Amino acid sequence: MIKKKIAISVGDLNGVGIEIALKSHKEVSKLCHPIYCINKELLHQATQLLEVKLPTDFALSEVDGNFEIQAGLVDAQSGRYAYESFIHAVKLCETNEADAVVTMPIHKEAWMRAGLEFKGHTDLLRHYFNKDAIMMLGCQEMYVALFTEHIPLKEVASKIQYKKLKTFFLDLSASLPQEKIATLGLNPHAGDNGVLGDEELRITKAIKSANKAVGFEQFIGPLVPDVAFSPQVRKNYKYFVAMYHDQGLTPLKALYFDESVNISLNLPIIRTSVDHGTAFDIAYKGVANTLSYLNAIKSALSFLKN
Amino acid sequence: MIKKKIAISVGDLNGVGIEIALKSHKEVSKLCHPIYCINKELLHQATQLLEVKLPTDFALSEVDGNFEIQAGLVDAQSGRYAYESFIHAVKLCETNEADAVVTMPIHKEAWMRAGLEFKGHTDLLRHYFNKDAIMMLGCQEMYVALFTEHIPLKEVASKIQYKKLKTFFLDLSASLPQEKIATLGLNPHAGDNGVLGDEELRITKAIKSANKAVGFEQFIGPLVPDVAFSPQVRKNYKYFVAMYHDQGLTPLKALYFDESVNISLNLPIIRTSVDHGTAFDIAYKGVANTLSYLNAIKSALSFLKN
Repeated sequence: MIKKKIAISVGDLNGVGIEIALKSHKEVSKLCHPIYCINKELLHQATQLLEVKLPTDFALSEVDGNFEIQAGLVDAQSGRYAYESFIHAVKLCETNEADAVVTMPIHKEAWMRAGLEFKGHTDLLRHYFNKDAIMMLGCQEMYVALFTEHIPLKEVASKIQYKKLKTFFLDLSASLPQEKIATLGLNPHAGDNGVLGDEELRITKAIKSANKAVGFEQFIGPLVPDVAFSPQVRKNYKYFVAMYHDQGLTPLKALYFDESVNISLNLPIIRTSVDHGTAFDIAYKGVANTLSYLNAIKSALSFLKN
Repeated sequence: MIKKKIAISVGDLNGVGIEIALKSHKEVSKLCHPIYCINKELLHQATQLLEVKLPTDFALSEVDGNFEIQAGLVDAQSGRYAYESFIHAVKLCETNEADAVVTMPIHKEAWMRAGLEFKGHTDLLRHYFNKDAIMMLGCQEMYVALFTEHIPLKEVASKIQYKKLKTFFLDLSASLPQEKIATLGLNPHAGDNGVLGDEELRITKAIKSANKAVGFEQFIGPLVPDVAFSPQVRKNYKYFVAMYHDQGLTPLKALYFDESVNISLNLPIIRTSVDHGTAFDIAYKGVANTLSYLNAIKSALSFLKN
């Protein structure tokens, strides 16, 4: 079997990303051909700081830029380089030099200092491709796609609209295997027949309409949110739709904190990411956890197969 | 050590409550003196239906009423009897004939058919004692107290008010051991410094004010909701405050579905309950799970010790 090529964007070099990449290289190389989007000079700085030897088969696709790496520093130059590395990795996919992108964490404030007004990778991809990227998080056991993301809780209910839900369901269906998807209600007890809120009526209508378009009962719900992630329900589903950020991510992180990855769906390219931040407090100390990164690589490969 | 007396309200007799009580009697009797709030005739019907022998030491405090038990039927008479059994159990505590109440599940629609317009036990207790009962759910590993309960999600944000929060914190503090309590924010990333909502400002103010009144840093937060129940945070806390129903109960049921119990705090009596419903579909089939009931007994005893 020919190994897939994965472009690795190195994230904020003042954080844990490059350490995780170097530490995991041997294991990752068994699964795919990683192509690291960083230049020789910056990589040399990183290996010096980490006091590790550069693996001989560490393939680069070099990205211009030079600055002094300073562990844990929120810095415009390091922020800008994280951006350049990511855009470079995306372009490698567009030109078919890579099959997917796996991203190391960026630092939002460093991006802001560099004049980059994106909320994160997913937001940047939305602008770059002018497409409604879907944010999904999870691991092999369970994935949660978010209908709304980074908005105040008080704004969530008004976003539960039939047309937008239906479009979201159809986009999600096109991005996932033909499997049942557990779809949560919005309110306690899924509204308890309207006594505790009526947004479930719109969710139900969108589910029915989407299932008709898809051709089978793919979206199941609206499920009562507080039991949707109980063991009895989880054994029947791998994919979930949450109506808002914390509805999906709180149980996911309660169950699978270290294992989870972040996946961007409904885009021309496949992109997965670690589900943690730059961890500036432990950068270049040799203690960063590699599990989420390895899972991000595996997830990208499994979505390439779909 | 003298065993405590626990009044057991039998719940809806068309459901699983009495089966669980009979099945668990031997084990429960090792922990406390259970006093079952049911009359001989109805109990006889139940043992006949279950084809079990009545334990010789099954102590009753009889509650008037007679009707035919019909497994799984939503019925006004059965609903009314569940209410009478519960009020009887509460009165046993008020007269010091019992030390605490443990409740089997009632059926809300059966209560409605009987003309009883309460949302459940906790709501009834609020009216009965004219006090702001606090609803807390959980098990030995983790308890979650709910600041808001059965309201539509869109109404939650407007309930996050300084004075009400402070009163809630102080009431909760008086009901729990002098331990740290993890207190969640409302919005994704706990508002991300106001970018994703500003209710955290009021939560912060109420936490500070409550901690000052309590005399130590008891309430910790507002924590980022989606990581509040991750293993790293859970190892530091046993008690949590959630701002709304699903914020607390979704992760709780993801982690401890079968083990959880429901506890009413801030009342003149101690009352715990199983955290499941009447399970009409499996009533009188001999398959009901007793774990939540046993934990409800143990919880009542541990709160009696506090």
